[in-house]
Amino acid sequence: MKALVYGGPGIKSWTDVPDPVIQNPTDAIVRLDTTTICGTDLHILKGDVPAVTKGRILGHEGVGKITAVGSSVTNFKVGDRVIISCIKSCGSCSNCKIGLYSHCLGEEGASGMGWILGHLIDGTQAEFVRVPYAENSLYKLPVSVTDEEGVMLSDIFPTGFEIGVQYGGVKPGDVVAVIGAGPVGIAAIATAGLYGAAKIIAIDLDANRLEKSREFGATDTVLSGTATWKKDVFALTDGAGVDVAIEAVGVPTTFSMATEIVRPGGHVANVGVHGKEVPLHLESLWIQNIFLSMGLVNTNTTPMLLKLIEGKKLPAQKLVTHRFNFDQFLEAYDTFSRAAETKALKVAIAR
Amino acid sequence: MKALVYGGPGIKSWTDVPDPVIQNPTDAIVRLDTTTICGTDLHILKGDVPAVTKGRILGHEGVGKITAVGSSVTNFKVGDRVIISCIKSCGSCSNCKIGLYSHCLGEEGASGMGWILGHLIDGTQAEFVRVPYAENSLYKLPVSVTDEEGVMLSDIFPTGFEIGVQYGGVKPGDVVAVIGAGPVGIAAIATAGLYGAAKIIAIDLDANRLEKSREFGATDTVLSGTATWKKDVFALTDGAGVDVAIEAVGVPTTFSMATEIVRPGGHVANVGVHGKEVPLHLESLWIQNIFLSMGLVNTNTTPMLLKLIEGKKLPAQKLVTHRFNFDQFLEAYDTFSRAAETKALKVAIAR
Amino acid sequence: MKALVYGGPGIKSWTDVPDPVIQNPTDAIVRLDTTTICGTDLHILKGDVPAVTKGRILGHEGVGKITAVGSSVTNFKVGDRVIISCIKSCGSCSNCKIGLYSHCLGEEGASGMGWILGHLIDGTQAEFVRVPYAENSLYKLPVSVTDEEGVMLSDIFPTGFEIGVQYGGVKPGDVVAVIGAGPVGIAAIATAGLYGAAKIIAIDLDANRLEKSREFGATDTVLSGTATWKKDVFALTDGAGVDVAIEAVGVPTTFSMATEIVRPGGHVANVGVHGKEVPLHLESLWIQNIFLSMGLVNTNTTPMLLKLIEGKKLPAQKLVTHRFNFDQFLEAYDTFSRAAETKALKVAIAR
Amino acid sequence: MKALVYGGPGIKSWTDVPDPVIQNPTDAIVRLDTTTICGTDLHILKGDVPAVTKGRILGHEGVGKITAVGSSVTNFKVGDRVIISCIKSCGSCSNCKIGLYSHCLGEEGASGMGWILGHLIDGTQAEFVRVPYAENSLYKLPVSVTDEEGVMLSDIFPTGFEIGVQYGGVKPGDVVAVIGAGPVGIAAIATAGLYGAAKIIAIDLDANRLEKSREFGATDTVLSGTATWKKDVFALTDGAGVDVAIEAVGVPTTFSMATEIVRPGGHVANVGVHGKEVPLHLESLWIQNIFLSMGLVNTNTTPMLLKLIEGKKLPAQKLVTHRFNFDQFLEAYDTFSRAAETKALKVAIAR
Repeated sequence: MKALVYGGPGIKSWTDVPDPVIQNPTDAIVRLDTTTICGTDLHILKGDVPAVTKGRILGHEGVGKITAVGSSVTNFKVGDRVIISCIKSCGSCSNCKIGLYSHCLGEEGASGMGWILGHLIDGTQAEFVRVPYAENSLYKLPVSVTDEEGVMLSDIFPTGFEIGVQYGGVKPGDVVAVIGAGPVGIAAIATAGLYGAAKIIAIDLDANRLEKSREFGATDTVLSGTATWKKDVFALTDGAGVDVAIEAVGVPTTFSMATEIVRPGGHVANVGVHGKEVPLHLESLWIQNIFLSMGLVNTNTTPMLLKLIEGKKLPAQKLVTHRFNFDQFLEAYDTFSRAAETKALKVAIAR
Repeated sequence: MKALVYGGPGIKSWTDVPDPVIQNPTDAIVRLDTTTICGTDLHILKGDVPAVTKGRILGHEGVGKITAVGSSVTNFKVGDRVIISCIKSCGSCSNCKIGLYSHCLGEEGASGMGWILGHLIDGTQAEFVRVPYAENSLYKLPVSVTDEEGVMLSDIFPTGFEIGVQYGGVKPGDVVAVIGAGPVGIAAIATAGLYGAAKIIAIDLDANRLEKSREFGATDTVLSGTATWKKDVFALTDGAGVDVAIEAVGVPTTFSMATEIVRPGGHVANVGVHGKEVPLHLESLWIQNIFLSMGLVNTNTTPMLLKLIEGKKLPAQKLVTHRFNFDQFLEAYDTFSRAAETKALKVAIAR
Repeated sequence: MKALVYGGPGIKSWTDVPDPVIQNPTDAIVRLDTTTICGTDLHILKGDVPAVTKGRILGHEGVGKITAVGSSVTNFKVGDRVIISCIKSCGSCSNCKIGLYSHCLGEEGASGMGWILGHLIDGTQAEFVRVPYAENSLYKLPVSVTDEEGVMLSDIFPTGFEIGVQYGGVKPGDVVAVIGAGPVGIAAIATAGLYGAAKIIAIDLDANRLEKSREFGATDTVLSGTATWKKDVFALTDGAGVDVAIEAVGVPTTFSMATEIVRPGGHVANVGVHGKEVPLHLESLWIQNIFLSMGLVNTNTTPMLLKLIEGKKLPAQKLVTHRFNFDQFLEAYDTFSRAAETKALKVAIAR
Repeated sequence: MKALVYGGPGIKSWTDVPDPVIQNPTDAIVRLDTTTICGTDLHILKGDVPAVTKGRILGHEGVGKITAVGSSVTNFKVGDRVIISCIKSCGSCSNCKIGLYSHCLGEEGASGMGWILGHLIDGTQAEFVRVPYAENSLYKLPVSVTDEEGVMLSDIFPTGFEIGVQYGGVKPGDVVAVIGAGPVGIAAIATAGLYGAAKIIAIDLDANRLEKSREFGATDTVLSGTATWKKDVFALTDGAGVDVAIEAVGVPTTFSMATEIVRPGGHVANVGVHGKEVPLHLESLWIQNIFLSMGLVNTNTTPMLLKLIEGKKLPAQKLVTHRFNFDQFLEAYDTFSRAAETKALKVAIAR
C-alpha cells in the first residue's frame, strides 16, 4: 500500500510500504477513507519528537472501514465504518479504569502513553492502518455523519472540548477567552457553549481567523499584538477578568497572556503543545486562587460529541478548508504548513 | 493599648497606640487573649509587601473576647469568646457568594482582597483589634477548645487544608507528598487524612521536622537535598509518582520538585508564598494531564475544622512549640524568626 | 397602601393596609412596579399551607424601586431598581455559608426557612414591601432588562434551573425529559441547554403547552395520558431511557412517570410541590443506580441568569401570557387560576 | 467438581456438577480457595429472584487461583491469586466507559446487568468458576492480604463504600448515620472515615451489633425500636439532623427512618435490597433539599480498598465471625441464615 513515511527531520515521502496485518487478538485493520494532518505532524517533521523514528508512517486521525478484526473483537466487524481515535485505550489498566486513556498503560507502545499512532507505531496517513485495542479505540460512524465530520472527532474536537472546556471548568454564565483561533482553539470555541458560557472571546494575531471564529460561536474577538489587547479583554468583563482562559497556541507569550487575563478564582486551561519552559509568575499568582491545567486528550467524550454532530449541533465540517486526495498528500502538507498564507484550518485527504 | 507596630523595613516595636473603636455597623472590637506570628509577618518586616505602610499594627491570627459590636451585628455579643479569621468576608459580594472569601470585594481594604488584618488595616498583634464584617469573620469558640487550638484556626489549619488538601483534590487511597514540613505543611499533613489519603510523605531538608511530621500523620518521610530524594519518593509509589504534591515552602526549587514527582493525571497544590517567578516545564508537562492550583485561604472550612478539634480529631495544639506573654513580644519574634535553630513551629503569645 | 390580603381559605381581597417600615438595620423597603402570582399562592388560598395566617399579604415575586434602607445596608440605596428574590438570605448562618439559602437560619421568619415573603411575613402583592436581609435578597436590575424579565428571576427561572437542571445533574449530550410544561417546567426546558442537553423532551397532557414548549427549547414533545407515551419516550432514546427526568407537576402519577423513564445511572429531579406521599418502587429501583433530588430554590444562580437575560440568551419574557395593572389584581388571580382555559403561563401585574 | 446448586425455592444441595470451561477468549477459570454467603443468596433461596433458575450454582464472592485463561487475557496468567468481583465488566460498553459497571451492557448475561455470577450464570460457591471478562472482573491479591480479607472485597466492602459512603456524598466533618449494623452497614461504618466523617452513628435493633459496630469505627450508637430513638439521634446533632443517612436494611420502616433524621440539604443513601415499594413523603420532603440515591455496586473502588487493606487501614477480616470448609457448606448456610441467634456477620468457607 501507499503511506506517508517519515524519513528523519525534514524528510517525508508518499511511498510503498507493506500492508499492516493483525498482530494481537484485540487488533483491527481499517482501510482509510479520509485522513488529515495535525500540527503535531509538523513538529515531528521538524525533528522535535525524537521518539518518532525513521520509517514511521505518520498520522493519528482518520475515518475508514474495517477489513479485519482480531479474535477477541466482538463489538466491531468487517465492513463497519469507523472513526479512529488518536488515543488507544486497553480499557483495563488502572489509568483506563479512571478514564485517563491519554496515559493508558496497556503494553502496546509502552511507557504509559495513549497516543501511539503515527508516534510509536505506524499511523493513519496510509491506505490501511492497524488499530490496537480496537474495541476501545474505534467508534462506529452513523450513516448520517460524513467522513469529514468523523475525522474532526479523531482528535481536534475532543481535544478542544476536554482539555480546553472541561479541564477549564467552564460553567453556565462564564466568560471564556480562547487564545489562538487555530483548529484546536476553534474546537474549544465551538464547544464552550456546551457548558453555557455566556461570552466567548477569541483572541488571535490574525484578523481573518478572528472573523472565522465567529462562525463557530465566538461572541467577541480581540486582536492580540496590539497595545490595548489586555484592556480590550478587561473591558469585555467589566474589569473583572475572564472566568476561563484557554491557551491554544503553545508558546510562552500566549501562556503568559492567559495568566494575565484570568480573574481570581478562575481557570487557565493549556491546550497548546509547548516546546520550551514558560515562566510562571507565582510571585503575583500565588494569591490569586487560579487553577491551571494541561494535558493530552482522553477522547472519552467522543461518543457524546458524535451524538451532537449527528443532531447537527456542532459545525465540525466547517473546520475543513481544503480538500485533497491520497495522490496529493504532499500538496496537502504544503498547504497545511503554510496556514498563515493559505488560511488553512484543517485539510481533508480522501481516498 | 500596646501593639506590635511596623516601622518600615526591619523596624518593629511593641508600643503604645490608641485603642480601636467601632467604625461601621458591621464591626466588632475584640480584646486579644492569644495571638501568634506568621511567616508572612517576617516577609512584611523584610519590606517584601509594600502595601503594608509604616505605623501598621501587624498580625492576622488571634483569639479573644468581644468588647463591643456594631449596630447590625446580631449573631455575636459582648463577652463572646471568638476566633478571629485571617480573612474578612462581607458575605454579600459576588465573590463571597461563591465562597471565594479570599477575594471579598466588600469595600473595606478595597481591591478585592480578603486578607486585610495586619496588611491593609491594623491587625491582631495588639491588646485590642477592630474586626470588620464581624458576622462572617469571627467564629465562636466552644469552652472545650483552648485558646491555642483556636489560634491555629485563624489561618494555618484552614490554609493547609483548603489550599493544600482540597485544592489538591486529595481522595481516598491517594499518595500525597508534602514538600516542606513547616507549620502550613504540617497542617496539610494533619488534614490529608480527612479525604482518606493512604500514604502521606513528608519531604524536608530538616530531619528534625520530618520526625515531627510523623506526630501529625506523615506515614513516610524523605530527606530532600540528597542525591536520591526523587528515587526515594518514586520507590514509595511503585514508580508511579504521587497523586498529589503539595508545595509548602515558596521557592522555585521546591515548586519544581512538586512537578517532578506527580504522576500523570495528578495534582500540584501550591501553598507556599512566592517572591519570584518559577519556571514551568510545559515542554514536558503539557502532555502529563497535571492540575496545578494556588491561592489564599478562603477559611470556609473553619467551622468544620473547629468541630474536629472539639471532637479531639485534630492535634492542632501540638503545633505550638514556644509560649510567650504580651510583654515578650519581641522575644517571640526573635524565636520564631530563627526557627531552624529554635525548632519553632508556631509560637503562642498570650495576654 | 393597597395589598392582596389573605383572609382564610378561599378568601382574598385587594384592600387598604398600613405601609411597611424599616424594622431592622438590614431591611429595605421596595415600591413594587411589577409582581406576579405563583401556583403556590393558589395552594395557600385553598388553605393547604397552614403556616399562612389570616391578614397576611401574599406574593414572593416582584420588581420595584427602593424607597428606604436600614442603617447597615451599604450595597443598595434609595432609587435602585431591584429584583426581589423569593428567598431571603442572612448571608452568615451555617446554611447560607454553604449556599443553602432555601434553609437560611437567620432569625426572621424563624425555623430554618428561606421562603418567608407572603408566607411567614407580608409579601410582594402590594404597593410596597419590606425586604429583610436586603443585601443578599435583592438584585440590581440593569436598565436593559425589563420589569417582566426581572420578575421571572424572583422565583420561576432560578427554580427550574437550580432544582430541575442543576440538581438533576444535566451534562453535555444528555437527554432530558421535563414532565409538566407549566411555568416552572418551561423554565427547566429553557435552561437545560446551559449544560449542553442534546435532547429536551417536553411531556404534558396539554397539546397547546407542548407546542409552546418548543419556543423555549424543547426538541421533542410527548403527549402523556396516552397508551403509548412511555414507548414514545423510549423511542426517542434508542430504548435506553432518559438521562435526567424532571418532575414539574407535583402529583404521584407524574412522579412515578419520572422514575419509569429514567435510565440506570440517571437522575430524577423533583421540582413539583407535592400535597401527599408518593409510592417509591424501591423493589425495582434499588438496583438501578438512580439519584433522586428535591428542594426549594436557593436563588444563588440569580446573578448568572440575569447576565444571560441581559445578553438576550434566555427568552424569559415570553413566559408572560397576560398583563394586568394593580387595580385588576382579582381579575389576574381569576385568569391565572383557570390556566387550562385561559392558556395562562405567568401573569404580569404592573403598577 | 462440587458446588452449591439451587433447586428451586427452599431447595439447595452441595453436589457434583461438571467443571466449568473457557467459553470466550476473555474468560478465566478460577479454582476457589475461599468463598462466602450473601444476604442476597438467602433471598434467592426464598424464590424472591425469579431470574435465578433451577440448577444454577449460587454465589458471587470469592478468592482463588487462576487455572486457565482465554486467548485475549493478557494481564492475568495461570497461577495468579485473585479476588473475583461480584460485578462483571466488559470494559468497552457505554456504561463501562463511564464506570457504571453495575449496568455493563457486555453481551454475557444480557439485559444491562453487571451482577451475573450466581444469578444469570453459575457462581462462586463451587470448587471452580468461569469468570467472564476476566481482565476487568478479577483483581490480583498481594501476598500480604489474606483470603478472608480478599473475599470481603468481592462485594461487601465496595458496596458499603460506594453505594453508602460515596453515593451519600460524605465529606469531612459530616455526621453520618448508618441504619442497620449488618455486614454491609458495617462496611459503610468502616469506610465513612475515608471522607472524614466526624461522627458515625450506628442505629440497630440489636444491642450486640451496635457494640460490634464500635470496633469498626462507629463513634455513637442508637438503639432503634425505642420511643426515643429519633430524639436520641437529633441529640447527637444539636437538633440539626444528620448530614448523611445510610439505609442498610431494605424495608419500608428503615427507609422512612432515614428520611426522618436527615437535615435539609442532606443525603439519604439506600443500600438495602428492597422487596416492596416504600412510601416517600414528598408532601414534607419536597422542600427539604434532600438527595436520595440507590444502586448496585460498581466495584470501581476495589483496587483502592485493596491498597488500604494492604496498608492495614481497613479491618476487613474482623467481619468474619464463623469459619467452615467446603464440606460444611450447608452448615455455613444454616449459621448465616440464623444470624440473630448465631451473631454471624460474614461466614468464610474455605477449601
